[in-house]
Amino acid sequence: MPVPDLGELVGHAREGRPHAVARLISLVEDSSPQMAEIARALTPHTGRARVVGLTGPPGVGKSTSTSALLTALRADGLRVAVLAIDPSSPFSGGALLGDRIRMTEHATDPGVFIRSMATRGHLGGLSVATPQAVRVLDAAGFDVVLIETVGVGQSEVDVVRLADSTVVLLAPGMGDGIQAAKAGVLEIADVFVVNKADRDGADATVHDLKQMISLARRELRGPSWRQPIVRTVAANGEGVGEVVEALRAHHEWLTGHGELTRRRSARARAEVAAIALRRLHAELADLRHGDRLTELAERVVARELDPFAAADRLVTELKN
Amino acid sequence: MPVPDLGELVGHAREGRPHAVARLISLVEDSSPQMAEIARALTPHTGRARVVGLTGPPGVGKSTSTSALLTALRADGLRVAVLAIDPSSPFSGGALLGDRIRMTEHATDPGVFIRSMATRGHLGGLSVATPQAVRVLDAAGFDVVLIETVGVGQSEVDVVRLADSTVVLLAPGMGDGIQAAKAGVLEIADVFVVNKADRDGADATVHDLKQMISLARRELRGPSWRQPIVRTVAANGEGVGEVVEALRAHHEWLTGHGELTRRRSARARAEVAAIALRRLHAELADLRHGDRLTELAERVVARELDPFAAADRLVTELKN
Repeated sequence: MPVPDLGELVGHAREGRPHAVARLISLVEDSSPQMAEIARALTPHTGRARVVGLTGPPGVGKSTSTSALLTALRADGLRVAVLAIDPSSPFSGGALLGDRIRMTEHATDPGVFIRSMATRGHLGGLSVATPQAVRVLDAAGFDVVLIETVGVGQSEVDVVRLADSTVVLLAPGMGDGIQAAKAGVLEIADVFVVNKADRDGADATVHDLKQMISLARRELRGPSWRQPIVRTVAANGEGVGEVVEALRAHHEWLTGHGELTRRRSARARAEVAAIALRRLHAELADLRHGDRLTELAERVVARELDPFAAADRLVTELKN
Repeated sequence: MPVPDLGELVGHAREGRPHAVARLISLVEDSSPQMAEIARALTPHTGRARVVGLTGPPGVGKSTSTSALLTALRADGLRVAVLAIDPSSPFSGGALLGDRIRMTEHATDPGVFIRSMATRGHLGGLSVATPQAVRVLDAAGFDVVLIETVGVGQSEVDVVRLADSTVVLLAPGMGDGIQAAKAGVLEIADVFVVNKADRDGADATVHDLKQMISLARRELRGPSWRQPIVRTVAANGEGVGEVVEALRAHHEWLTGHGELTRRRSARARAEVAAIALRRLHAELADLRHGDRLTELAERVVARELDPFAAADRLVTELKN
């Protein structure tokens, strides 16, 4: 493809034209050299969108829930974008295809934009590309940007937890998993949703969650957000209005307690550090036209040098 | 715990004493300040162990296969260590517990060492800690180190693909997944295992795999390793001897074609780069006692600066 006129592209994206939005996301997803220029052009027009993360273990109905949430937010007149974060593992192809097909019910709605993002192979790819894509959607005037993780790896969860509000989806019959994983789940959830609430075991799941939350609260000092637990049957829309309401209440709490700025600062810290590290990584790999890292690695294989000593030399040379 | 005498610990580990091995792995897993010292002390005694990676999507029987492979390698008189890489996602607790319990059948065998590794939250944690743990096991005289991934995230797969030989497990009834994911799967597998081969659909899975492999081979120039497909029923040990044989043949091919050194260099490159980046990350976060990154992040939130410009300043300051 020819090099696009960025000014024109940004202008069109700000008018909400889907092709321009999609093109800009492709450019930031592929780590194009224009990434920095795009961010600079978009930055003045951002800061308005609410960023909502949505995550949970496989089988809880994440894409059905995302779709139902989309419908509910649209009914309130909001423009909504969805970023579905693909796990870049080689074993994840099948599920995704299903997600994309299910999303087609919103395909003709101009107030909805849906995009899958996959970033294979390069260090920190997801943590650099995702905030850039959010920036594009924010500047394009979407009121809500939903980041849905399809995968459950650490990097996917890290991306979601940097949202303004994070929804953790669970479903009945996962009691053991919740127990074993409780620390992590409590840490990232602002709103709990127990989906498939018409199934056996929903009460037990809600009960387990309540107990976990109340135990965790005892360790807290001062006032804090009370993580609500909403029951839904996403497949028929039951309870989804309450999720929207819980998110609204959380957003109000965030702004009322200075927490929104704190979260956005944390997100910006992570973003700036990830960009800097990616650049440093490229510089390390390029030292002496790429020969230096290879040479040091070969000395490690030959057991002449341990890897920490090799890394020390690399860092020293990078700085000189 | 008190600071251990590293010299003594390394000595005991080299004698194969399990407590010393376990303690050293804990030290490298927790990124203790002694990590570098431990690597330096161990490095001269390494390079002998064969490192085998084992991965595959959920539900294919990874831990049953690992256990069966352990039994078969032990029958050949080899000392075997297993590193089970925990996905550090908050949603993964349940499955792991099951893995650990199943492994107890080898718990009383002094020629077997089994260890789960979880590394939460810090960038590149897995890519720094795993090679250190392999180094401990190598120096402790294990003939084979099996790295099994429990998770399927990119970082887990990256770790496994850096083994000398990588086994990719599949099972019948995953045809769609294989199709969608074929590029990634072909790239990482040295040996394919179709487990649960007594179930319906095993022939179709093997057929799909063969087709994928022959398509991919057309694009290759020169002689290369022919990825074998082995059928197993790990639950009763069927076919597991053939997996051992395929791994032996692959090891011979690796050494005969200079590929072993090439792979170990690639592993060392990744390790050295990960250590260097972790150190650079810490230095970025510490600039002006941690205030600089925060200050730049706040300017990004205020839209005075885009994140790429902020990262530029950070990198420049780091080098001065």
